Amino acid sequence: MQFASRLDNVETSAIRELFKLLGKPGIISFAGGFPDSAMFDVEGLKEASQKALTEEPGGALQYGATEGYEPLRSQLSSFMKTKGVDVDPSGLIVTTGSQQALDLLGKTMISPGDKVIVEGPTFLATIQCFRLYGAQLISAPIDANGVKTDELEKLIAEHKPKFVYLIPTFGNPSGAMLTLERRKKVLELAVKYQTLIVEDDPYGDLYFGEAPPPSILALSKDVPGSRELLAHCGSLSKVLSPGLRIGWMIAPPELLAKATMCKQFSDAHTSTFSQATAAQYLKSGRMPATLAHVREVYGQRAQAMGAALKRELGDAVSFTQPNGGLFFWARLTGANGKLADANELAKRAIEKLVAFVPGAPFFAEKPDVATLRLSFATADVAKIEEGVKRLGQAL
Amino acid sequence: MQFASRLDNVETSAIRELFKLLGKPGIISFAGGFPDSAMFDVEGLKEASQKALTEEPGGALQYGATEGYEPLRSQLSSFMKTKGVDVDPSGLIVTTGSQQALDLLGKTMISPGDKVIVEGPTFLATIQCFRLYGAQLISAPIDANGVKTDELEKLIAEHKPKFVYLIPTFGNPSGAMLTLERRKKVLELAVKYQTLIVEDDPYGDLYFGEAPPPSILALSKDVPGSRELLAHCGSLSKVLSPGLRIGWMIAPPELLAKATMCKQFSDAHTSTFSQATAAQYLKSGRMPATLAHVREVYGQRAQAMGAALKRELGDAVSFTQPNGGLFFWARLTGANGKLADANELAKRAIEKLVAFVPGAPFFAEKPDVATLRLSFATADVAKIEEGVKRLGQAL
Repeated sequence: MQFASRLDNVETSAIRELFKLLGKPGIISFAGGFPDSAMFDVEGLKEASQKALTEEPGGALQYGATEGYEPLRSQLSSFMKTKGVDVDPSGLIVTTGSQQALDLLGKTMISPGDKVIVEGPTFLATIQCFRLYGAQLISAPIDANGVKTDELEKLIAEHKPKFVYLIPTFGNPSGAMLTLERRKKVLELAVKYQTLIVEDDPYGDLYFGEAPPPSILALSKDVPGSRELLAHCGSLSKVLSPGLRIGWMIAPPELLAKATMCKQFSDAHTSTFSQATAAQYLKSGRMPATLAHVREVYGQRAQAMGAALKRELGDAVSFTQPNGGLFFWARLTGANGKLADANELAKRAIEKLVAFVPGAPFFAEKPDVATLRLSFATADVAKIEEGVKRLGQAL
Repeated sequence: MQFASRLDNVETSAIRELFKLLGKPGIISFAGGFPDSAMFDVEGLKEASQKALTEEPGGALQYGATEGYEPLRSQLSSFMKTKGVDVDPSGLIVTTGSQQALDLLGKTMISPGDKVIVEGPTFLATIQCFRLYGAQLISAPIDANGVKTDELEKLIAEHKPKFVYLIPTFGNPSGAMLTLERRKKVLELAVKYQTLIVEDDPYGDLYFGEAPPPSILALSKDVPGSRELLAHCGSLSKVLSPGLRIGWMIAPPELLAKATMCKQFSDAHTSTFSQATAAQYLKSGRMPATLAHVREVYGQRAQAMGAALKRELGDAVSFTQPNGGLFFWARLTGANGKLADANELAKRAIEKLVAFVPGAPFFAEKPDVATLRLSFATADVAKIEEGVKRLGQAL
């Protein structure tokens, strides 16, 4: 069978191979990129789904508009308002998880050979998704404060990309938080170079302690002409439930219309059953308590992992304590002759019954083999401490 | 903003414009392509969703495997067995409606410029979906017995297509049912020309009276070497609920693996909440009664529409009475100087407060402007009779 030529641009990820090993009995996994199932507000979602089927069975079970189910678009518009973004329900479309927003951006924007700038490192499925549409990816370097905007400017000027894709708040895998100053700089770059910026924001609600700076989208009101150059992707997956597959995209009208057309031929619309359930949930008023709960629990786990990493691995690893999200991004220093290759460490760690993801596959260019990603989301504090101890032994 | 070049291949459909007029008060619509909301087994789905959230909240709300939720794959495997198809749960993947199966086939198989043979007429969203991947579509003519296999053979020999896409059972828009003899011929053509056949089967369960012949997939066991050249798309949308967005694809392992990779970067997976609900529903044993109910009600409506068309439009229209599905496919004959242009009739019909869809957009090549599609699914018998009367007046 001869497959489409676009498949030549992607390979099955090395991480998939690693994940096959996670079934080993007794393993403590820091490898996942998902929230803890124990955090799901099952009772709230039960009530919401029953209400959806009782009050609006036609809407919840019938075909719906490609743009999204109106009551959910309204709720998401209100939700965005609490985060400083003024957007009409008609200014957003509902997507089947924010993964689909990425797919629609690729389908709508990327012609084969087009350049797209991403962070180095960035979300693995973004790299593969855009490459399937023929994108040539350029990596912009980051530090603990997110993408380095001076380097980003040079790359934009040199490559004139179709767009720039950023996860500015507690990025996957970096955990980094783009500073307020750099956010403003990104908006200035958008206007100066008339470049579309895609802000992917699945983790912004998941902060510990102080709230992060407003999203790039929220800040755009202070930078004339920037809003028309911004696409923003949101998601309920990390804070409420990934299984609902509810994401959304806010974008300029012309882009939103083209993405909607592409979505029509991708999956017609996102499950109205999921959409009506999410709408009822947001309407129920339970979301603030759910957010407070996940912030508290994940915050404790992040603290525990940071302390354990210092205690057990010392100067063999460097990292910045994340203020939100799901991930530690760390780098093996090779101090005292210790291992500095995360792939090798991953193999030894599996033998010690602890798992994490090596960082190299997250780079679209020039992989840094000393990096690794550790999720603190799915193991409790005791497991985190035991897991990091095993990691120290493996090292 | 400069969009991807692939968007040049599609235009927003003329039908969308028509649909904007359907909000007119008092209108009777035969235009929709959807089932009647009144047919949904709301109680059964309520129970199923509660069970899913009670018995398996982690599974129903967490990220899931891209291939699909295991309990649903098992249920679908059993469901296919009742239809004469022997397929392992691992031999199918769950898709976000069967629209996504089409999208994944496009993404996986079609390089720009590749030829694909479809029926003339065929499903509108298939035409647009495949064109977005750069397909050049070739139309194979049909009659009341489905695609003309002798013509199909000539086209396959001439064009060596990437695949042939058929809706053999109560097709949209044709309502036609491919005969047993022609089904076998299609399988022989697959083997003779080593051509992939895609069988889209959303309507096969929706028959009135006698069951249709087995699906092409079910028949493949009698034609050595044909099963490896078949992809089959199924859906719960027409018989249970479109809002769940549950479809599935059965295909040879290599194709299924590539489609799964593409799905991973399209939407990660189909809503596990919908999948777990569908699995519980199928497990509950309510499906046979639901099928019997929809077959009976739609059968009555199809009878009523056929009789009304004969009574009110006489020889000004020709059609074959469908034995299943949702649609009448009719042709204006122009007899006695009557109108033979379905676009013009659609405009006049809207003035008389009745709507249908002109047939021309359903042709990938050489549109027949005398054709039209009438859905009998969403109006009750009294409305069908009144609506067809108005159609006669418009004509």
